[in-house]
Amino acid sequence: MTGGIVYLVGAGPGDPGLMTRRSLELIAAADAILYDRLVPPGALDGARPGAELRYVGKAPGAAAMDQEEVNALLVELGRAGRRVVRLKGGDPFVFGRGGEEAEALAAAGVPYEVVPGVTAGVAAPAYAGIPVTHRDRASAVAFVTGHEDPDKGESAIDWAALGAFPGTLVMYMGIRRLAEVAQRLIDTGRDAAEPAAVIERGTLPDQRAV
Amino acid sequence: MTGGIVYLVGAGPGDPGLMTRRSLELIAAADAILYDRLVPPGALDGARPGAELRYVGKAPGAAAMDQEEVNALLVELGRAGRRVVRLKGGDPFVFGRGGEEAEALAAAGVPYEVVPGVTAGVAAPAYAGIPVTHRDRASAVAFVTGHEDPDKGESAIDWAALGAFPGTLVMYMGIRRLAEVAQRLIDTGRDAAEPAAVIERGTLPDQRAV
Repeated sequence: MTGGIVYLVGAGPGDPGLMTRRSLELIAAADAILYDRLVPPGALDGARPGAELRYVGKAPGAAAMDQEEVNALLVELGRAGRRVVRLKGGDPFVFGRGGEEAEALAAAGVPYEVVPGVTAGVAAPAYAGIPVTHRDRASAVAFVTGHEDPDKGESAIDWAALGAFPGTLVMYMGIRRLAEVAQRLIDTGRDAAEPAAVIERGTLPDQRAV
Repeated sequence: MTGGIVYLVGAGPGDPGLMTRRSLELIAAADAILYDRLVPPGALDGARPGAELRYVGKAPGAAAMDQEEVNALLVELGRAGRRVVRLKGGDPFVFGRGGEEAEALAAAGVPYEVVPGVTAGVAAPAYAGIPVTHRDRASAVAFVTGHEDPDKGESAIDWAALGAFPGTLVMYMGIRRLAEVAQRLIDTGRDAAEPAAVIERGTLPDQRAV
């Protein structure tokens, strides 16, 4: 009943080499690891024998454990005095729902710590040779989710403001709405001739960029 | 004259624990390391004995080696067959001028590889307890530099578009223009009551957030 703590840990975008030193140390020391579908291959190899490894991710469209359940499980394990790693693809606070987990832990009085990771919106373009900022060409970059909270309705994103954004736009999980997104951005002011890339399986050996 | 390669490596935002596994491996194997002022404490500890360690950073306002000279040195070392790490704070492609170095290397035919890092714009807020995105409150985040190319003139940033940006705004290196930036954002549409934070020495033990 003493010493429980939950680490909300970013595992980076997919390439195991982009995991941080601290994430590897925490994985090696954890009593329990709750992990998502998008953690890098081999991310759990360093876990100690006997650690509880629990998959809490979902396939696209299909629910495994919902966010409320994950929050409750983190609180329960932390209260039981366990040293818990909540391992997520990318960074926990960039479309990673770490904010909700942190709130649940804080509300329950369970100590937690956030360990940032390399985010896919920077790394996947870099692996494709694309700097998201450039001194001569882009003084700003914006990250947007293409996979919005369905409860917010279709138009929660302010497309006119995004169309006018003065820099690089990176959309996460945007593939299913790609044509619609591109059309809306052009409608709201982006040049149709502006260079664009679509990247799949970013930073993994089979990354594809078009 | 064979086998030269330059790695443009992000060392993360300051906490040595946020360096990636691959950055540590490349530092350990490098013949030469060109590093900036903002690399984490102890970042070079793993360099092999005999590696050439060269500081190429600048203090704010004071020029040490200019970007053209750094580009030329990278090309020269790569052509001489050296295994070179160009180590930068944060991520090389997020206000890191890695784009210019990559272009110079490509133009000279020197092989290079980009190794992304954890960027301060995500990590420093996380260490202060602030998620830059949140499912209920921010579907987007934008990173902007507060330290623009002086040659571009004062108004290269489109403030009206930034003021209207539908999400979290993170400004890098913005401290010297803080009052001006805040006023312009309010003038162009941000709510003056919107929560804001200023963070200094992000992710280091003496991080300050206001």
